[in-house]
Amino acid sequence: MKMHNFNSGPSILPKEVLEQAAAAIFDFNNIGLSILEIGHRTEWFGEVITEARALIKELMQVGDEHEVLFLHGGASTQFMQVPMNLLDNNDTAAYCDNGIWGTKAIKEAKLFGNVYVVASSKDRNHSYIVKDFSIPADATYLHYTTNNTVEGTQWHHIPETDVPLVADMSSDIFCRRFDYSKLALIYAGAQKNMGAAGVNIVVVRKDILGKIKRPIPAIMDYRNHIEADSLLNTPPVFAVYVALLTLRWIKKEGGLAVMEQRTHERANLFYHTLDSLAAFRPIVATEDRSLMNATFTTSKPEHEKLFADLCKQNGMVGVKGHRSVGGLRVSMYNALPLSSVQAICDLMKSFNDQYA
Amino acid sequence: MKMHNFNSGPSILPKEVLEQAAAAIFDFNNIGLSILEIGHRTEWFGEVITEARALIKELMQVGDEHEVLFLHGGASTQFMQVPMNLLDNNDTAAYCDNGIWGTKAIKEAKLFGNVYVVASSKDRNHSYIVKDFSIPADATYLHYTTNNTVEGTQWHHIPETDVPLVADMSSDIFCRRFDYSKLALIYAGAQKNMGAAGVNIVVVRKDILGKIKRPIPAIMDYRNHIEADSLLNTPPVFAVYVALLTLRWIKKEGGLAVMEQRTHERANLFYHTLDSLAAFRPIVATEDRSLMNATFTTSKPEHEKLFADLCKQNGMVGVKGHRSVGGLRVSMYNALPLSSVQAICDLMKSFNDQYA
Repeated sequence: MKMHNFNSGPSILPKEVLEQAAAAIFDFNNIGLSILEIGHRTEWFGEVITEARALIKELMQVGDEHEVLFLHGGASTQFMQVPMNLLDNNDTAAYCDNGIWGTKAIKEAKLFGNVYVVASSKDRNHSYIVKDFSIPADATYLHYTTNNTVEGTQWHHIPETDVPLVADMSSDIFCRRFDYSKLALIYAGAQKNMGAAGVNIVVVRKDILGKIKRPIPAIMDYRNHIEADSLLNTPPVFAVYVALLTLRWIKKEGGLAVMEQRTHERANLFYHTLDSLAAFRPIVATEDRSLMNATFTTSKPEHEKLFADLCKQNGMVGVKGHRSVGGLRVSMYNALPLSSVQAICDLMKSFNDQYA
Repeated sequence: MKMHNFNSGPSILPKEVLEQAAAAIFDFNNIGLSILEIGHRTEWFGEVITEARALIKELMQVGDEHEVLFLHGGASTQFMQVPMNLLDNNDTAAYCDNGIWGTKAIKEAKLFGNVYVVASSKDRNHSYIVKDFSIPADATYLHYTTNNTVEGTQWHHIPETDVPLVADMSSDIFCRRFDYSKLALIYAGAQKNMGAAGVNIVVVRKDILGKIKRPIPAIMDYRNHIEADSLLNTPPVFAVYVALLTLRWIKKEGGLAVMEQRTHERANLFYHTLDSLAAFRPIVATEDRSLMNATFTTSKPEHEKLFADLCKQNGMVGVKGHRSVGGLRVSMYNALPLSSVQAICDLMKSFNDQYA
């Protein structure tokens, strides 16, 4: 039985990606070796990473002023690596504090320079996005999290600013059309919309690099990775390959326009159902709802566990809020079929009939 | 056709590990989800990482004073992370400079404190191991590389010292019996003897941590990873699973005693053949030869490419020196069958008959 996978990440992947990944473990492209056994400096892997980097540029529609890197470490490493590369000791970066991951990014940035917290939604448990704020003109960059996986909020526009924009897009990259060219640095863990856990993409506009005086450890310096064509050290070969397979799938399905259409179909169906049922209630501001991670709870607190257990019994995994906030959450990434959303909506309706 | 895989890393894995890894991509333990789709905080993955950490402790025969971590980033990240955690600004660490990776580790350590290079084999292209040296008593730790993958040399004893010993064991971990309890910190990329590329193990004695004043970025602080049971951020789930499968295989085959026996069988066969053929010549000091990576060349320079091409034609991959040093290299990791070594020895003999 295939489960309905609402995991927040690592999360559901397209069936054909899984099939191709498994096949490559037996024999990669009929070369007589597993994808796990090939050197990262072979032509075989060179073609993989070259195609993957090019596909990201193509999907993002960014030009040669941007470079695409596949890095180790997950987005949490970028919380450190971004200020390590961009923020000098006496300079100041602007940060939006709209969720748990943004808060963590701020903490790391403070180790390297000064931080202006230009917007914070902490006063209401990060249940909304602060959209109206000003950015000091001397800010080195503005950092924001496009989608808050934990809280279930999302930016539905790109902040207007003259300073370089840095975005953590881990949980909504490639879910919709987006003007990536407006961003100076984008980072994202692959394990939601772009593949399996174990690799991170960083897309960086080269002109923002090389401006700080503090020495940067070799493995953390974006410039070294650019110079080495994203092969500075042994990359996570298999995770890069799964990212390539997922990127190919996105393109084949119709690119970001089609991803966006499906994203809206899933989110509309889910939120429409949520809003129509007395037994459930949303948590975050309606206008800031995430198209990827819907957070909600039951109207009666004692029903929460009951519903969560019911989901498990019905083969639905991942319907559970992040351990830091509790509640319920349904993640609806690119590979999630609409039928899975329909299944949980049906379950919510029947739960509502019984308990509302 | 299955190739003879002499890759230096990523490298050959046991056939059953590949089969189990591929099966888990379709369906992990019959749970109805792929290993690539499960959350890292599920019981499913909890069992994987707990068993993997325990198996490493068991194979190393270290007790609770040591903690086992699975980290992102590869050994190159440890070149930075080790001094970041252990070396204070005004303190000094001792480093052995016996190969390209040790040299790189030294460069990174200098960003965090002072470095005594206590031994260097640079004078003869790192073709030997400096074994006789003294370590200043105030050194915070001594760092050495147990096996030099690129140059083909290996330490055949553990340096005697009273300061904490830190070892990069990326290319010879678990190849033989070894008194791991003598080391304060061990790190190794998984992609040689312990699995696929994309994860790093760090085994650290807890008493050496928490002694520096400089703040450590959260994601780089070993203490945070220990406290989080190696689940501080999303780990490279699949790479950890492949490491578990490989560790299980090592144990099932008979543990480090059997690995050691096979290591010697492979190395003895190869070096005996190498020494007996006029057409080839070794590169490094005989007493320091690596049991994992045999570096050599042809007696006549014009034969090198000829022999490398012959290897390719005979389905042997990876027979090529590291791009920084040239020459030829045969890597013989745990999963390499003796029959592959026999195959290249036969080819060398027939080459010798024709060209010597």
